Amino acid sequence: MNDTSLSRRNIDFVLHDWLQIDKKADRETVDAILDLSERLAADQFLTHYKAADIEEPYLRDGRVHIHPAIGVALRQYAELGLFSASFPERHGGMELPYSVCAASFAIFAAANISTAAYPMLTVANARLIATFGQESQIETFAKPQIAGRWFGTMCLSEPQAGSSLDEVRTRAVFDQSDQLGERYRLSGNKMWISGGDQDVSENIVHLVLAKIPLADDSLPKGTAGLSLFIVPKILPDESRNDIRVAGLNHKMGYRGTANCLLNFGEEAGAVGWLIGEPGQGLRQMFMMMNEARISVGIGAAAIAGRSYQLATTYARERLQGRETGTGEREQVPIIRHADIKHMLLQQKSYVEGALALTLYCARLVDEASSDADSDALLGLLTPVAKTWSSEYGLSANDIAIQIHGGYGYTRDFDVEQLWRDNRLNPIHEGTTGIQAKDLLGRKILKDGEGIPILGRKIAATVGEAAAHSHFKEQAASLAEAWSSIEHAITTLSGFHQSKVFDNATPFLRLFGHVVVAWLWLEQALVTLRLDHLGDSRNDFVDGKRRACHFFYEFELPQALALLPAICAGSDVASGAAAEIF
Amino acid sequence: MNDTSLSRRNIDFVLHDWLQIDKKADRETVDAILDLSERLAADQFLTHYKAADIEEPYLRDGRVHIHPAIGVALRQYAELGLFSASFPERHGGMELPYSVCAASFAIFAAANISTAAYPMLTVANARLIATFGQESQIETFAKPQIAGRWFGTMCLSEPQAGSSLDEVRTRAVFDQSDQLGERYRLSGNKMWISGGDQDVSENIVHLVLAKIPLADDSLPKGTAGLSLFIVPKILPDESRNDIRVAGLNHKMGYRGTANCLLNFGEEAGAVGWLIGEPGQGLRQMFMMMNEARISVGIGAAAIAGRSYQLATTYARERLQGRETGTGEREQVPIIRHADIKHMLLQQKSYVEGALALTLYCARLVDEASSDADSDALLGLLTPVAKTWSSEYGLSANDIAIQIHGGYGYTRDFDVEQLWRDNRLNPIHEGTTGIQAKDLLGRKILKDGEGIPILGRKIAATVGEAAAHSHFKEQAASLAEAWSSIEHAITTLSGFHQSKVFDNATPFLRLFGHVVVAWLWLEQALVTLRLDHLGDSRNDFVDGKRRACHFFYEFELPQALALLPAICAGSDVASGAAAEIF
Repeated sequence: MNDTSLSRRNIDFVLHDWLQIDKKADRETVDAILDLSERLAADQFLTHYKAADIEEPYLRDGRVHIHPAIGVALRQYAELGLFSASFPERHGGMELPYSVCAASFAIFAAANISTAAYPMLTVANARLIATFGQESQIETFAKPQIAGRWFGTMCLSEPQAGSSLDEVRTRAVFDQSDQLGERYRLSGNKMWISGGDQDVSENIVHLVLAKIPLADDSLPKGTAGLSLFIVPKILPDESRNDIRVAGLNHKMGYRGTANCLLNFGEEAGAVGWLIGEPGQGLRQMFMMMNEARISVGIGAAAIAGRSYQLATTYARERLQGRETGTGEREQVPIIRHADIKHMLLQQKSYVEGALALTLYCARLVDEASSDADSDALLGLLTPVAKTWSSEYGLSANDIAIQIHGGYGYTRDFDVEQLWRDNRLNPIHEGTTGIQAKDLLGRKILKDGEGIPILGRKIAATVGEAAAHSHFKEQAASLAEAWSSIEHAITTLSGFHQSKVFDNATPFLRLFGHVVVAWLWLEQALVTLRLDHLGDSRNDFVDGKRRACHFFYEFELPQALALLPAICAGSDVASGAAAEIF
Repeated sequence: MNDTSLSRRNIDFVLHDWLQIDKKADRETVDAILDLSERLAADQFLTHYKAADIEEPYLRDGRVHIHPAIGVALRQYAELGLFSASFPERHGGMELPYSVCAASFAIFAAANISTAAYPMLTVANARLIATFGQESQIETFAKPQIAGRWFGTMCLSEPQAGSSLDEVRTRAVFDQSDQLGERYRLSGNKMWISGGDQDVSENIVHLVLAKIPLADDSLPKGTAGLSLFIVPKILPDESRNDIRVAGLNHKMGYRGTANCLLNFGEEAGAVGWLIGEPGQGLRQMFMMMNEARISVGIGAAAIAGRSYQLATTYARERLQGRETGTGEREQVPIIRHADIKHMLLQQKSYVEGALALTLYCARLVDEASSDADSDALLGLLTPVAKTWSSEYGLSANDIAIQIHGGYGYTRDFDVEQLWRDNRLNPIHEGTTGIQAKDLLGRKILKDGEGIPILGRKIAATVGEAAAHSHFKEQAASLAEAWSSIEHAITTLSGFHQSKVFDNATPFLRLFGHVVVAWLWLEQALVTLRLDHLGDSRNDFVDGKRRACHFFYEFELPQALALLPAICAGSDVASGAAAEIF
């Protein structure tokens, strides 16, 4: 009952029929990677999904122990070369497009997000070192991660510095230079470190944001003072670094991923090597964070996706009630009831909308290095991909429980755990509120290049759709929605600085829905090209088109209803005194 | 940190300033009951909130054991006469208005819903027997429950009969008559029985829906064949009845309430006494179910309410980020950020909207027996009170987690458990989909009396609000929203029978938001009468008005955006073949 995962047909549709990934990698290789991912996910990830939730990580004698099945699964993941898939050959990689790796990651995330989180962080960590580190750092710290022998973390938050990284107090004092670069001694407390300790990989490479004290020993103010350090758990000379696990966070979900409070430098100071130049820490970390944000979006879509598959299966099997107005006496599968179909279609519009959005962004990653437009569009869409998938993916998980009725509320079914797991995604790697400020402040009002590019792409889709009777109405709605967005941006850019962010989060919600409406129309248009394939694809095609129509009938209008309050600069919330709550 | 509960000021506002409950009960008595409820809730219910979640009920040697603190709390609840509060004096009660008891229940539900569920079910059970039972049944089975010595359950669902009660297969065969009425022998399996067994009360009174076989031994078809039986765990002669606990459901939340699969009559047949006439079971049960539905709504509002209090407290204490545009260097409490204020105001609009809606319904219960309009309005609003509070209460819980950030995702804070607890409410006592059919089918298109009554009430509110510059706009919006509802009803009533329910659930969402918008305007108008009370109430008044404005600016428009699809009779979901999913 719990063994369904993501729809492969849908992944193939997105990668090949829509994103035409075969221009980047041959179909055979892509199929082989995804087949292998499906098998490993089913055989080694899904199998301990429930067990790793029940038997949480625990701390004993200063060491964190995680469920042993996680180690078994990840060793096979490493053996199949999946850690290395996206890396260039010179770093021991397979040089596959990021978009293909992202689809593979989605399959693992659907099966077991908290096990998949370890390689996700490891790969992002290694990529950062491979990008900004010196050759000896890549050799020593990135390659063992690319091989999957060591795992990686990102250490940003501190108890007093969550969303505000300028408050970081971890200090890094210069020690001496060696063949690995400039060596520092770090001291400070890092909070919420996923994979901060575990007993599965040979070593753990922490990437730590810290500040180098000024001449008067004070720490520089602001984020410009942040530098980035490679701080391994076990040093190259095999000795333990000065890092202590001060505690484990006991989460409501996502439990297989050990989440730690780490104390660096309680004794002589934890040894760490500076990456690149001092003061570049946040900029460098943003590379890892942007990758992580897209991964969070993909993970959220995947967790939602499995819940959709489970709900569909349950709805086909569960007999309850009769068909309205038929006078039929036998009970029917609940999938025949309008209310259930409405919920399934809503789920489908969220799940496949989120998957399209996040894999589209993954495709942009592949293009960003050689195409400035793709790079700008990626910057614009990253906060949307992270947030929309997290928020609406979670809604899809909620619907899956509702379709299961009382059964969905029991721990005998996976849908409740999937819901708990997905609840983390609107929080970590930047909350929804932080993403909203990034989108509106940095990506739209400051950078600004992404909007006209997106506008042109949307106009192209509108143009194509307007020519088809099936999608004429949607084309008109999308054109109108986009001009509402442009109008809103013009209006918001005229607001006083102190008012601009008053309704940034509703704006993100609105913007996200317009973007996903566009991607639904894109997907619907692709189905026109599938028509010649005959009857066997009719259900799939009808499903895509209905989900598109559903999104335009029920979803987009609700989001657009937020426009008047946003454009009027409503201060009903922002103007409230703290005392009224 | 976790000891805040519901806002008493808000409860007082709703009961006294708005609903003018003092016309039914003197203020002193009401205050005394609520004071006592707050104390007992804090001292005995909240104290085992976490413990009862961790140490779940367990089954050993055929008996269910629940957390002992639940028994301690409920004995005190009984000693203070709280089981009996709403019953007439002749049944050993205090004859308090139901609305006052509902407010008291809200306080306990906020502190610990799964402990509060036992008396909630017990009181509803006893009221059913007191209403439909014969004198000896009341004496024997209702009074010990009114005294809080015995607890009660409702046994409706079976594995194959969840939302479809006509599928009930439990059979009741006539045995003989005795001084307790017509005695039957029952056999069958009942699923999802809250409080189905426990080791805390002296006895358990099950109210069991079953069918009396026809002459050919077959069971009558449909719900008309359902009869209701009193089936005690321990019989009047002190022997155990033939009821076996076949299993416990392991839920994701609401864990203190043992939820059982009960097998009746595995041996000689469970002894049960018929209530009233055969075939009246569902009608009788609906009395209990309607009370339970309002209680579910109140509970959902209360669980959400505590999460709002916790979020507010956290937001006042947590320092993070700076005030936008002030250049201030010190971190500020997050309650000063627009995004957090937006979330808190949204929560407030849900929590206090749901509490207003459900306590309004409780007030209608007090009036329904003597006033036909109130009775009709209560019927109309019951599915709304149950559903809207459950759905948007859950959203409020979700927001509380978001405000807590990563901390809210850990089990060190209560907000995650509150969210898990509240997830049951859109499911039990009739899912959202079932409530939507009840609202649109039975309450609007079939009965129909409720709508014009509600229309007149809304028109009165609109008239009053239109005279005040503060609320003119809201008055116009509400008038327009209500005429949209009337238009939608006219349109829907013209649809073919097989199409009417195609979008019943979106209609319920729309209808619920319009009703709550009305109640927000009602509450805002009441604040005009508080103005003379001076400065001390200014924050409270401003809070109510802002929440009202927020609801009209951000919430109502989104719900109204569903109108076109509903009125067009969209078949995008209902017309979908099962194979497209």
